[in-house]
This record gives sequence, C-alpha cells and structure tokens, in this order.
Amino acid sequence: MNYDQIFQSAQEAFLHFKNVSGKDKATFLRRIADGLEAEKHTLIPLASEESNLPEGRITGELGRTAGQIRLFAKLLEEGSWVEAVIDHADPERTPAPKPDLRRFLTPLGPVVVFGASNFPLAFSTAGGDTASALASGCPVIYKAHPAHPETSKLVGQVISKAVIDSNLPLGVFTHVEGGIETGQKLIQHPLAKAVAFTGSFTGGKSLFDLANQRSEPIPVFAEMGSVNPIIAFKEKLGANIESLAKAFVGSLTLGAGQFCTNPGLIMVPSIHAEAFASAVKKELQEIAAAPMLHEGIAEAYYKSLSILESRKELKWVQVAAAKDLIKAYPALAKIKANDWLEDDHFQQEVFGSFALMVVYENFNELFAIAQRLHGQLTITLWGENGELAKKEDLINLLSEKCGRLLFKGAPTGVEVGHAMQHGGPYPSTTDSRFTSVGVHAIKRFVRPIAYQDMPQDLLPDALKEGNPLGIWRTVDGELVK
Amino acid sequence: MNYDQIFQSAQEAFLHFKNVSGKDKATFLRRIADGLEAEKHTLIPLASEESNLPEGRITGELGRTAGQIRLFAKLLEEGSWVEAVIDHADPERTPAPKPDLRRFLTPLGPVVVFGASNFPLAFSTAGGDTASALASGCPVIYKAHPAHPETSKLVGQVISKAVIDSNLPLGVFTHVEGGIETGQKLIQHPLAKAVAFTGSFTGGKSLFDLANQRSEPIPVFAEMGSVNPIIAFKEKLGANIESLAKAFVGSLTLGAGQFCTNPGLIMVPSIHAEAFASAVKKELQEIAAAPMLHEGIAEAYYKSLSILESRKELKWVQVAAAKDLIKAYPALAKIKANDWLEDDHFQQEVFGSFALMVVYENFNELFAIAQRLHGQLTITLWGENGELAKKEDLINLLSEKCGRLLFKGAPTGVEVGHAMQHGGPYPSTTDSRFTSVGVHAIKRFVRPIAYQDMPQDLLPDALKEGNPLGIWRTVDGELVK
Repeated sequence: MNYDQIFQSAQEAFLHFKNVSGKDKATFLRRIADGLEAEKHTLIPLASEESNLPEGRITGELGRTAGQIRLFAKLLEEGSWVEAVIDHADPERTPAPKPDLRRFLTPLGPVVVFGASNFPLAFSTAGGDTASALASGCPVIYKAHPAHPETSKLVGQVISKAVIDSNLPLGVFTHVEGGIETGQKLIQHPLAKAVAFTGSFTGGKSLFDLANQRSEPIPVFAEMGSVNPIIAFKEKLGANIESLAKAFVGSLTLGAGQFCTNPGLIMVPSIHAEAFASAVKKELQEIAAAPMLHEGIAEAYYKSLSILESRKELKWVQVAAAKDLIKAYPALAKIKANDWLEDDHFQQEVFGSFALMVVYENFNELFAIAQRLHGQLTITLWGENGELAKKEDLINLLSEKCGRLLFKGAPTGVEVGHAMQHGGPYPSTTDSRFTSVGVHAIKRFVRPIAYQDMPQDLLPDALKEGNPLGIWRTVDGELVK
Repeated sequence: MNYDQIFQSAQEAFLHFKNVSGKDKATFLRRIADGLEAEKHTLIPLASEESNLPEGRITGELGRTAGQIRLFAKLLEEGSWVEAVIDHADPERTPAPKPDLRRFLTPLGPVVVFGASNFPLAFSTAGGDTASALASGCPVIYKAHPAHPETSKLVGQVISKAVIDSNLPLGVFTHVEGGIETGQKLIQHPLAKAVAFTGSFTGGKSLFDLANQRSEPIPVFAEMGSVNPIIAFKEKLGANIESLAKAFVGSLTLGAGQFCTNPGLIMVPSIHAEAFASAVKKELQEIAAAPMLHEGIAEAYYKSLSILESRKELKWVQVAAAKDLIKAYPALAKIKANDWLEDDHFQQEVFGSFALMVVYENFNELFAIAQRLHGQLTITLWGENGELAKKEDLINLLSEKCGRLLFKGAPTGVEVGHAMQHGGPYPSTTDSRFTSVGVHAIKRFVRPIAYQDMPQDLLPDALKEGNPLGIWRTVDGELVK
C-alpha cells in the first residue's frame, strides 16, 4: 500500500475541502445518507450476514446512520457551530491601539477512522466518526473493520460516489483494507492529524500510545467501553423488582450484550438482593441465546467467564447454559461489596451478556464502591426522588466517574442529538472532553484560529463584518446574530 | 513533601468548589485581583528585582494579570460559558420514548500549573493558567518558578487569603516550591487531572510524555513557543522599509526578546533585502542591551548564537556586540531561502533578541518555505491588499501552520479578550485545540457531562427548566435565553 500517496491525496483534498461552504458540505453529506438508503436492499442483508445481527437491528442502525449524517448536514446549514468570535479594533486605545481579532474553528486535517465490529453501519465506514470528521472539513482515511469487509466496501463506494457527485477531490475519503499493521502505519503517517476509534481498551490504548510517540503527537479519540454500573436504591428497587429486572435483562442481553453501554455491573441493596436475583434469573431464562459478531468474540466471552468462574468470591445466579462457538448464553453472578472492593478485576468489562451483581449492606459500602469505580461512559441510578434527595454527595462523586448519568431506564440506547455526551473519564475513553455521539462530536476535529487585522475580502464568510451567513457570533463579548 | 496530602486536600476542595455558583467564584476571583493591586508597592519592585524586567514592564504586567482575572470573573457572572444544552423528552416517540437529556461543562479536577520565568505575574502564580483553572472550578496546585521565588510566594499568599475570605476550602489553591523532580511528582499523582505549562519545548515535551505514561493519561497544555515568522511582500516592504524595520526591531528586542511571540524569523524578498537589512541594523544599533531574566538564559542565548556563528550559510548583519553574563545584545543574520530549506535547525527558536532573515527570490521559494514551516503560535504577513489578494493558496497553507495569523504590526502583544487564540500546531504547543490566553482558556479544564431524566431539583441551576441563571442555552437545537 502506498501510504504517502493516500495521505498526499488527502492533504491536497484537505486544503480545498476545509474552505467548502457549510451548505455545500451539507449537500455532500445528504448525498451519502441518500446513497445509503438507496442501497438498503443490498446493504441490510449483507451487514446482517457479516455481523450475525438480525436484519431488524440493522434496519434500525441504517436509519440511525443516515439520521446522524443528516443531523450534521443541518448543523452545517445553520452554521453557528464554528463559534465565530469578533473583537473589534480600537485605534484610540492607550497605551497601544487595539487590533481587530476574529476567531473561529477550522478543521485539523486528514483524520484516520477505525470502525467498530459491533456497529457495522453506525460506528463504521459512514458512522458517526466519519460523518463528524467530514462535517468539520477533514478528509477521512477509513480503516475497514475486517469483521464486515463487504459491508464496509459497499458503504465506502457510496461515500466515494457522493464525493464525485459533489465535485470534491477524491482524497476527501479513502477506504483502506488491512490488518493491525495497516492501522499502525496510517496513524504514524506525518500527515495524519487525528484518530477516531471505537473498540476494546487494548486496541484503543495501543493506538493512543502510538499517536503520542510520533514526532508530532496527534489526538486520539478512542471510545473503549466500560461496565456502565447501575445503582439500585432500596425503596425504588423494593417497589419495582419485576419491572426493573425486566429492564435490566433487556439492556444486558440486547444485541447479545455487545454494546459499549451494556450494564455489566449492578449494585443492589442486600435486603432485596435475593428477590431481585430471582426475578433476573427468571427473565434471563426467557432470553434465547443470540449469535455474537464472530467466533473470536464468543471465545473471548467464554474465556472471561471461565476466569470469573474460578473466583470463589462469586456466587452464580445463572451460569451460561452452554459455551457455544458463536452464541452468547447470558450469565449473572453475585458478589459481596466487601469482596468486590478488594480487586479491580471485578470491574473489568466482559464483552457480552454477563453482569456482576454487587450486594451492598449500607450507604457507606455503596459510597466506597463509588469511590473505587473507574471512569465510565454511563452510570445509572434507580432511586425514588425522596431517597435520591439525601444522596447529593454520592451523586456529586458519581458525576466525576462518568460522561452520562441516568436516573431512569437503562444505559443502552444512546440518543443522537444536541445534549448527548457519549464519552467518559479514562479508561472508558482516552479523552473525556469530547463526545463521539451527537452534534458535538464535530468538535473533536477542529481547532481555533485567530485572524488579526485581516483585510475584509480575505476573511472567511463566517467572520466577515456583515455576517453574510447569518450565524450566531460573539461580537465584542455579546452573542448576536 | 507530602504529595498525597496536597492532592487529597485539593480533591476534597474540588468536590465542593465545582458546585460553587458562578457569582461566588467571580467574587473569589475579584478578591485575588484586588489583592494583587493592594500589594503592588511590594510586588512591583520585588518582581522587577527577581526577573530583571523594568518596573514599567512589571506595572503593565500587573495590570494585565488583574485584568485577565476580572475578565474571567465577568465571564462567570454572565454564565453562558458552560454551554448548557437541553433536549426535552418525548414520551410519545416511537419505537422508543425519547429521554430528557441535559448537558453542560463540568471541571476536570485538580490542575497542576507551572509558571513561566518570562512573565513573573501574567503567566505565573496568579497568571492566566491559574485564573482560568480556578474560574472553571478546578483547584490549582501551583509549582512556583525558581526564577522568582519571593514574587511567587507573595502572590500565592494573596490567592490563599482570597480563598479564606471567600470561605472556600484551603485545598482550592496550593503553592508548592521545588525543582524538576517536584514537578514530576505532582504530574504523576493519580488525583492530578490536567497540567498547564508555559516554557521551553524540552520542558513542555517532557511533561507531556510523563503525563501520557501515567496509568491514567491526563491532558497537558504546554505552550512552548515558536519563531513566529514574519513574511514581507515586495510592494509593502518596498514602500515602508524604515517603518517596518522599526516595528520589527521593536518587537524583536522587546523584553530582551524573551517572549513566546518574539519574531525570530523574517522572510524578505531579495530585491529589498539589502535596504531592509541596513535599516534593521541601524535600528538595532540604537537598542541598549537589556538584562535577561537570569544568567542561565543569557548563557543559553549566547550558546545558541555560537552554534549559528559556525554555520557558513549565514551572513551576519549584526553580531552580538558582546557576550555578556546577563545582558542580551541583539543579533541578526541573513540566509538564502535555498540554504534555509536544507536544514530544520534554522527554524529552531533562539530565546532572546536574535532573528534570522531569510532572503527569497520568488513566490515558489516562499511557498516552499511555508510548506516546510513547523507549527507556530503566530505568523505575520506584511503585504499590500493587492498583493495579498493573489496569494490565497499561500494564506490558506499558512493558516495550517499557526494559531494566529496577523496582517499588520508585530506578533508580540497578545490581546486578552474573546477572540484571541494563543496556541498553535505542534511543536508551538502540545494541543492546538486550546488557547492559553483569553476567555476560551477556561475550556482547557472542563469536560461535558450529560444528565438523563434527572429530577429537576437535583439538576444544576444552569440546566434547570426555568433557566434561573438567565444564560444562553441550546434548547431542542435552538439557542435561547
């Protein structure tokens, strides 16, 4: 593979693409979304076959993928996302005249995107990372995930067709196939300016280290998953044992447990532990084992379970009914809070439909657990308003441990919108300051630039005096349109 | 030193301080600014003595320091900087009800700040890094710069007094004295969540590497300086040789050249090279050599000059009149563009009042120089509007190489306001996506958090339904107040 050629083409495309208007970039993005939907009769069975995910789920994922691309198109058409700021000159100021300063967000340059096996569409070739990078004005070099090569290729063709139809340089999007070494080479190329990744901790951390060892370090946005603890309080749980067991099992086993927001840890007060465990067991027994993404993932799932089965601290509420080559049989074990606190291994993610139920005796134990928790994408609290009201310190502490704090339902199901934060403290991601879902995902691929005393006709439209784009701007400290 | 105690106290303070209202944090910041001004009769001579910078300069720096603290106070009082976003629930949505999601910016935790020797006030103990970290709600552990220990101690006392007067926990600010090892220990502590540094590339890069080698990597905002190229075009330079030479020499020798925005590189068209060099020489000879910050810096300055003096590619317009133990005698050398392009050493920063004049023959040479340039804090273009108009490709390329692009004047003099970007592509900083000057500096120390279906009375005021703070918020995709 000629990496220099790939990146020189991307860099050349970048110097043009960064200046394409929001409206034109939006048209380009809509072409991708339309193209995906036009291919749905081929794409849905193909992605389903390659991922073992049911067609219904892939249909929903295709809708989500097209939807999030169109959300970025809308953001670009509106235009205010560039955060334009203007401080006017004051030639009379003493002791020194004040210059005219104008600042906005400008794209970083070619971005390397790695797809995720568990979302063959929404977090893959035309997924959120690609959509947000393209929206920002960055060309994308996409490293296809080997778990769904044909799906990736087809989606890549849809994007490349949209590039051509939009009269953009071909280097705006490059589809690259290959293994780990290919990914490493892409990250190490001097013209790569950022990396987006969704996958395992081991994978994400190795890319992060590689990027920081470059002679020019570059940012890596690795979304590496977490155990997404649910904390159940006495009153709420006591009054809703069956319905909460149902909600929990639904979230735990959704997509064979292969979600980064899958709840792999649940804290339950001892008084209701037995009743809740029984209710969960009953629900679990009604769940048919579903095929996992590929045999390697199934093997890893059962290997993780075997390691846990050797731990005497665990009591098994439900053992995996079988250790299948491809299907995930759900499993659930109980552990006392005291034992859980002894070993960080008990908060390691098991990718699949396994959860650990931590039985706590009192608030002090729960607080100790909260203090011990690693960074998480999400934490969910199940409590009546009355019992939550007295737990401000706990909620305050838990806010430090996650990117999203839920007070209802289950953590799976990540809304694509303006207020979503999908990203949390390390090790759930490599950078808690950004989100990989929702409109703010675009902020990962930009940096501010300031122009001082730039002649009006050279200024980008977003910064011109008359506000020709009609966007929100901060002018002399005031937000105006 | 008991590092655990320092950080446990900071962490405890953090869990309180993060929830202090913007108004109360503003009052705290104003107390610091007032306190600095109240101490000015002690502080100005002290800082001047310790830094060798004239009292006039320190007086201005004190005003700037207090001014930027008050700018953050104003930002907090207004309150919209937290970027509140609300997406309302839709229980009727199919196939799944839409939850209520609310997102805003929350502080990261204890921040380690390193002061700069060249700004004993504005980039030191109560400088921009400390001010923006405290404004965000992060406690600061300040590692005093050994070049101005007494100034640092006194300013530290002013901050600690403001902490007490504001009834804040003492751990909100800690003043730490020590050497390199102390700084390393601070960065390595598990409770440290971010680092801010202003200084040399070597210093900043080593902190960056250390922070990334932690078991939990943390962000490092290292502002490491650059050569801040000025590019002069034919018509503009030809018509203004004397005045531009004066502006250039003024900027080059300001503060004995000890500014991160000091112009150490100037590109001049060959047709005017001789005339401009003569004019610069004349100006330089009128500049009295000024004492540098300390002997170590003077020694490094003359050592860098000696290395350059051995390079046969350079022609010296002005050699340093003497190699003093403390004073910086300015120097200027010429080099042909062809030779400059051969060796990246020619764009390494010489900290002090030395500049390299690169003589270019034509636009192609200039474009090649631009392509070769490392990341810079600033780039300055001196051109008539007519000659700039034809150089869009060059300007587009130069935008990729800097954080601030100027079209008038000189790069020294960094405005503190809303539109400033002080930070550029690597190696000028470790993170081009943030600024260390101006209100946006606060963004370095925060991350977004989303609350899903949180009961109203538990929500922070910024996210409550009635908008009790009266701030700008994005509600269901629309910016409203």
